[in-house]
Amino acid sequence: MNEITKVALDAMGGDNAPKEMVKGALEAINSNEELKVYLVGQEARIKAELEGISFDKSRLEIVHATEVIETAEPPANAIRNKKDSSIVVGLKLVKDGTCDAFVSAGSTGAVLVGAIGIVRTIKGIKRPALAPFLPTEKGVSLLIDCGANVDARPGELLQFAKMGSIYYENTIGKEKPTVGIVNIGAEEDKGNALVKETFPLLKACDTINFIGSCEARDIPSGYCDVMVTEAFVGNVVLKMFEGVGKTLISELKKGIMSSIRSKLAGVLLKPALKKTLAKYDANAYGGAPMLGLNGLVVKTHGSSKALEVKNTLEQCITFNKAKINQKIAESTNL
Amino acid sequence: MNEITKVALDAMGGDNAPKEMVKGALEAINSNEELKVYLVGQEARIKAELEGISFDKSRLEIVHATEVIETAEPPANAIRNKKDSSIVVGLKLVKDGTCDAFVSAGSTGAVLVGAIGIVRTIKGIKRPALAPFLPTEKGVSLLIDCGANVDARPGELLQFAKMGSIYYENTIGKEKPTVGIVNIGAEEDKGNALVKETFPLLKACDTINFIGSCEARDIPSGYCDVMVTEAFVGNVVLKMFEGVGKTLISELKKGIMSSIRSKLAGVLLKPALKKTLAKYDANAYGGAPMLGLNGLVVKTHGSSKALEVKNTLEQCITFNKAKINQKIAESTNL
Repeated sequence: MNEITKVALDAMGGDNAPKEMVKGALEAINSNEELKVYLVGQEARIKAELEGISFDKSRLEIVHATEVIETAEPPANAIRNKKDSSIVVGLKLVKDGTCDAFVSAGSTGAVLVGAIGIVRTIKGIKRPALAPFLPTEKGVSLLIDCGANVDARPGELLQFAKMGSIYYENTIGKEKPTVGIVNIGAEEDKGNALVKETFPLLKACDTINFIGSCEARDIPSGYCDVMVTEAFVGNVVLKMFEGVGKTLISELKKGIMSSIRSKLAGVLLKPALKKTLAKYDANAYGGAPMLGLNGLVVKTHGSSKALEVKNTLEQCITFNKAKINQKIAESTNL
Repeated sequence: MNEITKVALDAMGGDNAPKEMVKGALEAINSNEELKVYLVGQEARIKAELEGISFDKSRLEIVHATEVIETAEPPANAIRNKKDSSIVVGLKLVKDGTCDAFVSAGSTGAVLVGAIGIVRTIKGIKRPALAPFLPTEKGVSLLIDCGANVDARPGELLQFAKMGSIYYENTIGKEKPTVGIVNIGAEEDKGNALVKETFPLLKACDTINFIGSCEARDIPSGYCDVMVTEAFVGNVVLKMFEGVGKTLISELKKGIMSSIRSKLAGVLLKPALKKTLAKYDANAYGGAPMLGLNGLVVKTHGSSKALEVKNTLEQCITFNKAKINQKIAESTNL
């Protein structure tokens, strides 16, 4: 029999909880026999969503947690004070080995703080990193780090590059993925103090395929597979990606609605446009894993619906089967 | 008689020099009586572009400079060694008071290094800042700084905020423009060390209309008028803006070409699409001024054609008439 991947899912996190979380969990277990989901949260509310639905009870379990951490709460306080929140209870299921992974669409800050405090980093890893995939013209690129550590140090960025390469190779299936450092120019002497110090470390590392600087303008075209950066810049890259895309699509729609002629064009263009835009839909790529922890913790968008939840749960199976954490742990000795 | 704004134009800078530089200069003097342009560069090549064209010789002059600085040259070396380059000669025309402004589509690094060394900063200004306008859903926002100083200090960012406000107010005509600091979250305690130290300085400054943090995802919608940031992040914002836009438009075009149905739609949509995309065409907004210098230095895109050159020359007239530098000098005493 195949190994079952066990995932604790924060049923209370995100804008569409618990409804879409429960729906996504059901869809995921129905299409993946090697998955078991623990729905963590207020039992009565979760049960209400499950009412009248038949499912494999051996692969979908409820773990009651009375409290909910709101997005606006200061993360450290929330983790300290709400011991019976879905985030704390879910992370503990990973810590005690009941589950392989924890998935949440709730407060990014609380998930990060909780993961570091409860699940803890792999021995030898200085800091974990949040690493989402971005759609590009060529396929997908991994952006690491994107939220966990502002003001990171060069040695930490080197670890991010190694972890990102391992994750990319084992998830996307491309051997020796290219690694670039996000920079403001192509030459080696360009950049701020952090980039200038990190560049030679990446260049000297023979376990990654470092190709030099990656200018921000080349990110959307897919210039490199793994883009290494400190979290402040990574967050700006990610949010600009989302923001510019949203604005351009909204302006395009306004353009389409501006005349009868263009409205007609809009109707004709719909199928092609839908296909193009689907590629740039963040929900299709699952969540962002925090790499470097003793277990897998994945943050999905606050706006996640069932499809993204399902995709993220499947991502956990891939991560678990590929033994990515084991490989990361081994890499700290390289 | 009205005051004449005198602009030295680097005729040799950019991908389309000298042709488009000369063409832009001619268009600008033909439509603005209050403008005089000094075309700086290799006389024979400039004269060849002017051949057979009649123009007001009292408002278009050639200043011979034998050398050309290439984009790939290390900026500091280039400025030091090529004393007779169009960039050095042009900047000297500003320094000695012959011209009010210098405009170049050449090497950004060389223009910046040259401007700081030759034109020098206004007394009291620590460092100059490159400040381009970005098109947004609401209109335009100013991004400052965007290339001149990586690893800036909080006091420098405060000066950027003041200079940016003065420039925005006097160029766009909006009183008390809103100022935000580019950040990774909306709350005051979010951010890296630089942002956390700068935030209270901006909050305490009563000559600017500070509204707090501006998350990168809100930049394209026009969340604030003046976006203050350190140059590394500013550069990433600017380049992501250009890169994501370019990729989405290219994917959209691919979508349109994918079937006969969508091709027909593309034909129908063309006028509306053109209008929408024109708003996001960087060339329509002229160049990026370096604020804080004893004179105006403007960097335009390397790919500039006559239209952007003309717009940038007109931008110099506005800047000069509004006495922006005088106002910036006064602000250092506030």
